[in-house]
Amino acid sequence: MHTAEHTMSKEMQQCIDECLGCYSICVQTVQHCLEIGGKQAEASHIRLLNDCAEICRTNAGFMLRGSPLHTRTCAVCAEICRACEQSCRSMGDDQMMHQCADACRSCAESCARMSKAA
Amino acid sequence: MHTAEHTMSKEMQQCIDECLGCYSICVQTVQHCLEIGGKQAEASHIRLLNDCAEICRTNAGFMLRGSPLHTRTCAVCAEICRACEQSCRSMGDDQMMHQCADACRSCAESCARMSKAA
Amino acid sequence: MHTAEHTMSKEMQQCIDECLGCYSICVQTVQHCLEIGGKQAEASHIRLLNDCAEICRTNAGFMLRGSPLHTRTCAVCAEICRACEQSCRSMGDDQMMHQCADACRSCAESCARMSKAA
Amino acid sequence: MHTAEHTMSKEMQQCIDECLGCYSICVQTVQHCLEIGGKQAEASHIRLLNDCAEICRTNAGFMLRGSPLHTRTCAVCAEICRACEQSCRSMGDDQMMHQCADACRSCAESCARMSKAA
Repeated sequence: MHTAEHTMSKEMQQCIDECLGCYSICVQTVQHCLEIGGKQAEASHIRLLNDCAEICRTNAGFMLRGSPLHTRTCAVCAEICRACEQSCRSMGDDQMMHQCADACRSCAESCARMSKAA
Repeated sequence: MHTAEHTMSKEMQQCIDECLGCYSICVQTVQHCLEIGGKQAEASHIRLLNDCAEICRTNAGFMLRGSPLHTRTCAVCAEICRACEQSCRSMGDDQMMHQCADACRSCAESCARMSKAA
Repeated sequence: MHTAEHTMSKEMQQCIDECLGCYSICVQTVQHCLEIGGKQAEASHIRLLNDCAEICRTNAGFMLRGSPLHTRTCAVCAEICRACEQSCRSMGDDQMMHQCADACRSCAESCARMSKAA
Repeated sequence: MHTAEHTMSKEMQQCIDECLGCYSICVQTVQHCLEIGGKQAEASHIRLLNDCAEICRTNAGFMLRGSPLHTRTCAVCAEICRACEQSCRSMGDDQMMHQCADACRSCAESCARMSKAA
């Protein structure tokens, strides 16, 4: 990534990377789920993946701008990532679903930490 | 707007319109402020306008998907719109700043209502 | 909509409204298709609806900023809207699919005109 | 990044990373320019940085969805990245402006290659 590292804390830099990575895998997972079909292609699961992708992308922007409001968007992002992780975990044994769930959990933890930063 | 009105409540439909309208005027106001310069072009004011534009756009998406998580994004959106309204009001006498502040307040009120919806 | 009408041509104002309207109905149509299932929920159709939603939203932003590059994004947006219209028309008799196809065609025509503007 | 590498070519994977990296640095550079002020904070330069950020982010989404229309969005993205590189180069000696210009050039080259992919 080409982000300018000197302008922000290591922890925020990492959270931005987590959010853009979680955005990326959620968008890919939507396509994967639609191709597999069945339970994984249910409207509520796809919607949650899209919700997660959108809030991760938006939250990354708040941190990249150095916005003091990032604590608020990080809190919501953490909550939505956790919901998405659970939905992915409930889908049973699929490698991409596991990868997506792991990315969501990791992002949720990072965002939860940032939401408490001063 | 071409939204399919039969699929959602009148109140949610209105909130989507408020969010997309507030997104639109915030993006336009950024350019207006940069052209005027001075206090209005300060980094913190432009950042808040961009924050507001981004969360409004994202929040509209949650409602358009019919996501149950829209109550969370609506709550954050209301808070950010109120902050943006205040920043615009503090800029003194400028027609576009007034328009933008009014759009932010109206959107904040609509989002606050939606954040409490069951 | 709260856009500041005096800052841009009537035609550009209309194109922004078309794009945000087409974005909105495409996002809603994704959920509608997933709930119906079958042919309408095929990965390639959902992807095209998401492609269309994304480029419409982005293109609106270029016009709202008054960017001289909007002619380029309008040209691509027109092409993607036409592809999405065709995909929706091929889905057979469904009221929402018709509405979405009509919004895509109307938006494509508006964007095609704007792509040629000086 | 958590993208699922096995689902796409190495070259497309790299282009997605370039786009998300270019998006990130453009958003950061907007804030940097506004804080410095002067020529760098001119409306047309900030607008171009925002144009570049938006199209990069959108273009990454097309590739992440595996959309066949990514060749179109890659072509536009390459053009806008080149324009943004030039604008950044014209700003004189500033480390962040150099970094941003380099990210834009690298992203433009990657997108230009992808726009010609079958």
